[in-house]
Amino acid sequence: MHIYERPVKFEDVDAANIVFFARFFNYGHEAMESLLGELEGGYVKLVLVRKIGMPAVHCEADFVAPLRFGDVARIEVTVPRIGHRSCTYKYDMFRQKDGTRVATLLHVCAVSDLEKLKAIPIPDDVRALLERHKR
Amino acid sequence: MHIYERPVKFEDVDAANIVFFARFFNYGHEAMESLLGELEGGYVKLVLVRKIGMPAVHCEADFVAPLRFGDVARIEVTVPRIGHRSCTYKYDMFRQKDGTRVATLLHVCAVSDLEKLKAIPIPDDVRALLERHKR
Amino acid sequence: MHIYERPVKFEDVDAANIVFFARFFNYGHEAMESLLGELEGGYVKLVLVRKIGMPAVHCEADFVAPLRFGDVARIEVTVPRIGHRSCTYKYDMFRQKDGTRVATLLHVCAVSDLEKLKAIPIPDDVRALLERHKR
Amino acid sequence: MHIYERPVKFEDVDAANIVFFARFFNYGHEAMESLLGELEGGYVKLVLVRKIGMPAVHCEADFVAPLRFGDVARIEVTVPRIGHRSCTYKYDMFRQKDGTRVATLLHVCAVSDLEKLKAIPIPDDVRALLERHKR
Repeated sequence: MHIYERPVKFEDVDAANIVFFARFFNYGHEAMESLLGELEGGYVKLVLVRKIGMPAVHCEADFVAPLRFGDVARIEVTVPRIGHRSCTYKYDMFRQKDGTRVATLLHVCAVSDLEKLKAIPIPDDVRALLERHKR
Repeated sequence: MHIYERPVKFEDVDAANIVFFARFFNYGHEAMESLLGELEGGYVKLVLVRKIGMPAVHCEADFVAPLRFGDVARIEVTVPRIGHRSCTYKYDMFRQKDGTRVATLLHVCAVSDLEKLKAIPIPDDVRALLERHKR
Repeated sequence: MHIYERPVKFEDVDAANIVFFARFFNYGHEAMESLLGELEGGYVKLVLVRKIGMPAVHCEADFVAPLRFGDVARIEVTVPRIGHRSCTYKYDMFRQKDGTRVATLLHVCAVSDLEKLKAIPIPDDVRALLERHKR
Repeated sequence: MHIYERPVKFEDVDAANIVFFARFFNYGHEAMESLLGELEGGYVKLVLVRKIGMPAVHCEADFVAPLRFGDVARIEVTVPRIGHRSCTYKYDMFRQKDGTRVATLLHVCAVSDLEKLKAIPIPDDVRALLERHKR
């Protein structure tokens, strides 16, 4: 499990004064980038040097409670599934101050050659990282 | 079925040069606002005057093909399910120029009193609108 | 003068419930894209086919009154200055319903070869368009 | 001087593959929030408990060099002017890895009662903080 903590920014809320639902996926992607920071060079090197990315093929979210400006999202990232060319990240999101669950997200990515936008087998070092967070 | 056409903006893409996956939900929400524009006063009046909103309780997306700057997303909005206090929007998204399906989204909303953030029965005029787009 | 009307979206506001100041520049850029829509193929063709873009070298804004969800921004685009390799757009922004001025923006762009990110002389057709909106 | 370091996120770039110009103001606002983190309770407490905010009345930016995914922006925040009811933040932004200046921003805020959206005298503790970063 990898932990990523993300304060809600002033501009993250909508006209109902809660974090806009689509932004939870931005938070999730940030948490994934944070997890991949455990690789040497992180997601940046994976993308820019090795030209490997993780475009989403499916994602979903259950929203349980709202987040507001002033809250910090505590995001627990795990990897429930590791396939040959794809993997699934899970983001369990909590309001940091009281531990309330706010949302649960799944994010299925195709590990891809970014130049051809074509799925490729997961490289060994990435697979090893994902295995460490498998649940 | 309600149609909403949305050009990809210069800033909508990511470092892989395709529309960032989270933004498809922004597009979906815009399409929902466009559908609700069929109500007198639209979503604006619903939210600001009647204090009724539609926070998401669940959403999901399947991504089939990328969208890029220069593309126009053609979004077909339908309403597959209308419950007592909630409804589900479906967004079938296509690349306008060649009709390729790019994504399919589901968006489950709790019709809510925005001041209490509590689900309420769907008002009659909103229900009638949703029924017209039921599939 | 080119007119662009832009409804404030549900997610455009911040925790003070007004449009976040940075977003006025997004609105301005949209208005510029709308103006360039008067070119054959619009900004899309300029960028994707001719590989010419307009990165900002300077911008500034005076904020006079807030915009809120439910407002429509009426944006009047003019071109106060046309240089050899750069031009300045001006965005006079008003609240549509009552004509209140909300902001005035200047946006200085270097007309650029996007592959080299290097300024180039303004092409004739672009210059002719800009001249039509000079004030 | 207050230092704020901000990695460019995957979704921060535009179709020219550089950070979209409007987003520099988002970065600036984050840097301001980081500076105000030196107050007890930070910007969050200022806004939510004391109902005091800092809406922009003017801002401007000079863009010198592009930022790309993979870069980290090093932002130096100073306060060149402290008035009775307003202040000016300056953000000197550099590419962290090589020290290249990428942009210089000014951000003039009216210290305001957020409920009335009306400027108020700068509170003593906020003034003391700003004085510490005056240049």
